Amino acid sequence: MAEDYREKYGEWALVLGGSEGLGRATAMDLAARGMDVALAARRQGPLDEAAKLISDTHGVRTRTISLDLADDNVVSAIERGMGGDDVSFIVYNAAAEPYGLFIDVPLDEHMFNIAVNVITPTRIVHHFGRKMADRGRGGIVLCSSLAAAMGLRMWVAYGAAKGYENLLGEGLWDELGLRGVGACSFMIGTTYTDSFIRTQEKLGGIYAKVKSFDELPEGFAVPQMPEDASANLFGQIDKEWLPVIFANPEDEARQKMMQDVPRKDLITMAGEAQKDWYA
Amino acid sequence: MAEDYREKYGEWALVLGGSEGLGRATAMDLAARGMDVALAARRQGPLDEAAKLISDTHGVRTRTISLDLADDNVVSAIERGMGGDDVSFIVYNAAAEPYGLFIDVPLDEHMFNIAVNVITPTRIVHHFGRKMADRGRGGIVLCSSLAAAMGLRMWVAYGAAKGYENLLGEGLWDELGLRGVGACSFMIGTTYTDSFIRTQEKLGGIYAKVKSFDELPEGFAVPQMPEDASANLFGQIDKEWLPVIFANPEDEARQKMMQDVPRKDLITMAGEAQKDWYA
Repeated sequence: MAEDYREKYGEWALVLGGSEGLGRATAMDLAARGMDVALAARRQGPLDEAAKLISDTHGVRTRTISLDLADDNVVSAIERGMGGDDVSFIVYNAAAEPYGLFIDVPLDEHMFNIAVNVITPTRIVHHFGRKMADRGRGGIVLCSSLAAAMGLRMWVAYGAAKGYENLLGEGLWDELGLRGVGACSFMIGTTYTDSFIRTQEKLGGIYAKVKSFDELPEGFAVPQMPEDASANLFGQIDKEWLPVIFANPEDEARQKMMQDVPRKDLITMAGEAQKDWYA
Repeated sequence: MAEDYREKYGEWALVLGGSEGLGRATAMDLAARGMDVALAARRQGPLDEAAKLISDTHGVRTRTISLDLADDNVVSAIERGMGGDDVSFIVYNAAAEPYGLFIDVPLDEHMFNIAVNVITPTRIVHHFGRKMADRGRGGIVLCSSLAAAMGLRMWVAYGAAKGYENLLGEGLWDELGLRGVGACSFMIGTTYTDSFIRTQEKLGGIYAKVKSFDELPEGFAVPQMPEDASANLFGQIDKEWLPVIFANPEDEARQKMMQDVPRKDLITMAGEAQKDWYA
């Protein structure tokens, strides 16, 4: 069935932001492929629950590392948590989503966004990517977002930071590929995660208002289940690493369609649509 | 001839990284359009020379602000330097170009790249963009790079950070446009600036080796002169702000041609070509 990742990549996978939603789904899929899984996130409770679910389901070893992804010492916190074991596969799935007009978002939210979506993935890839390259095997998935496909009103800061991760994943696919290590940017669209639901409720978003997805107006995508996003990711990696892997093939097709629309029309159109999201 | 920017945007333009190369060229063009110009960069000597050239040529007032674009206090250094005058037009033209495989570039170069290409433009746009929006006029040009068009071997860190600036410029075009302020990402290709020449000499690059550009092998672009890049920028802004303005129309056409090539082929091809650049 699923490929044996333990054989191919090594013993331990590390999922950052792994206690719920998409992170937890990828951890499950890595465990299904035979890897032991270390989960890192802020809150110990959800970490423990996710770890139990994974070990109960797949009988692999698990580990939890409580840490703050905005912290400068995140690499040493992980090394401590791993207790000397190598990290052989990484899913970096951070969720910081500053929402609002760029100039209205408080500066410390911008800095948090940069810490979590730019600085920390840089530190982690630099440290663990090098070790994987020295061993000649490993895998790195950096979760990006369709918000990085254009400068999108209300999500500009988030999209820009996810753009950094997207280009980092693409470039690492090439550079680390030369050293036997797989890497990619994982392009995620609207996904029905705990974090998505919380954000929608906080902002009074349309997804929190409709009773069923059938009620969504035209142009609003039915959210993808995190398990489906993860299945598409690993289904692709099982076959071949690509620089960018889309969580939803429909999103990839939609991106292709949009590439001939002049940027100013595209950005204005998408920006105007944002008005209706959180009205 | 050229439009009157003083009337349209306000008195003072600020060019960060304005002491030489492309920054100085944009400062000249802003002065030609009637604006007084504040130049900010690290070294006082080149700043003074550029300021003298600009005031001698165009008879506008100039100001120099010596500062470090990697510094957390850059906004207050600018405010001090402006002595109470509003900043009505900004060109953000920072040059930090970490070169090498991502995992081999020292971590502090990565952090410098993030400071200069991610954190500082965020601080500056947040502070001065908000003030422009309150006044209902102004202009912001964020210098990005073709290195942000894909994850490019040896330039991954630089391209990722420039990708942040690119999406920031695009998004601000929309968001600040709603408040009467112009903004754009300025996409720069190979430009014959002092910084480009220094980098080529340091790395033993092909542009430092050939005696004339006629000797460049196929696939190597003849560098654009910074004055031409700046003329294309302001020629476009005179007419209309666009989310992304290309320094060289040929680069834009080349980008369009590449968009149908599968990413893995494109990135591999461009990556392999890098081998010959600095051999």
